[in-house]
Amino acid sequence: MPRTAETASFKFNHTMIRVKDPNASLKFYTEILGMELISKNEFSDFTLYFLGYDHSNGEESVDVKQANRTNREGVLELTHNHGTENDPNFQGYHSGNSEPRGFGHIAIAVDDVEKACERFEQLGVTFKKKPSDGKMRNIAFILDPDGYWVEVVPTRF
Amino acid sequence: MPRTAETASFKFNHTMIRVKDPNASLKFYTEILGMELISKNEFSDFTLYFLGYDHSNGEESVDVKQANRTNREGVLELTHNHGTENDPNFQGYHSGNSEPRGFGHIAIAVDDVEKACERFEQLGVTFKKKPSDGKMRNIAFILDPDGYWVEVVPTRF
Repeated sequence: MPRTAETASFKFNHTMIRVKDPNASLKFYTEILGMELISKNEFSDFTLYFLGYDHSNGEESVDVKQANRTNREGVLELTHNHGTENDPNFQGYHSGNSEPRGFGHIAIAVDDVEKACERFEQLGVTFKKKPSDGKMRNIAFILDPDGYWVEVVPTRF
Repeated sequence: MPRTAETASFKFNHTMIRVKDPNASLKFYTEILGMELISKNEFSDFTLYFLGYDHSNGEESVDVKQANRTNREGVLELTHNHGTENDPNFQGYHSGNSEPRGFGHIAIAVDDVEKACERFEQLGVTFKKKPSDGKMRNIAFILDPDGYWVEVVPTRF
């Protein structure tokens, strides 16, 4: 089904999740998952962080990436409501995988799931499902700092 | 920050949400938002639908798209737990935007937000925020059949 002219420009730009502690989340999504911080938009009560993978082999400048932030797919938006990170009464965010259910997970595709998961283990990442658990040996689920599920799938099944 | 060899293959492949009625959701995401059904994986209790935008200008075959389903970004996975669509006791899924909060929305980038929203109105789409509501005139929020928020943003701010 080719697209019509009316939707020809449409892209699935981003997915937004709320995070308790942006430092922990940025560390996880950049240092462990290899995303890049494209844009940080600070408001009085909250800050938005837009992350995504660099597909330019490091060629694109930060300015170009920021300018193209909504003209691409695969962007992750983290919303930080100020203060949650050091509020002892903050209950944490809901992963969507216990009642009430809804959102399930985001997924990262990697060339070698086993190798990627060995590295995640070494880096102390929490697993929901290791590749060796259960029947599906070619996928895994890890947890981000807020407990959101991140599926790890092979780029080629 | 260029990526390291360890994460060089990584892609933000997909986002998964649960849906009550796949017919309603497929109609919304294909006919209204212009995505394409790339893959349908049926199991005994549930079915997974993978959707995404065609960026090949209609050149790629369904087989190629299916084979590349995890080797790209911008894929939306809809999980249908069989029976919810006609279960009078099913309470519906949680959008993540009332307590307990977590996931917030997905976002579609479009060249002309106003024009896209006029079309959405004509097609009977429910709006959470029209472009003319509030201060941010260049974005909108529409609701998918389960009440998940879909932000509509311009490809160029």
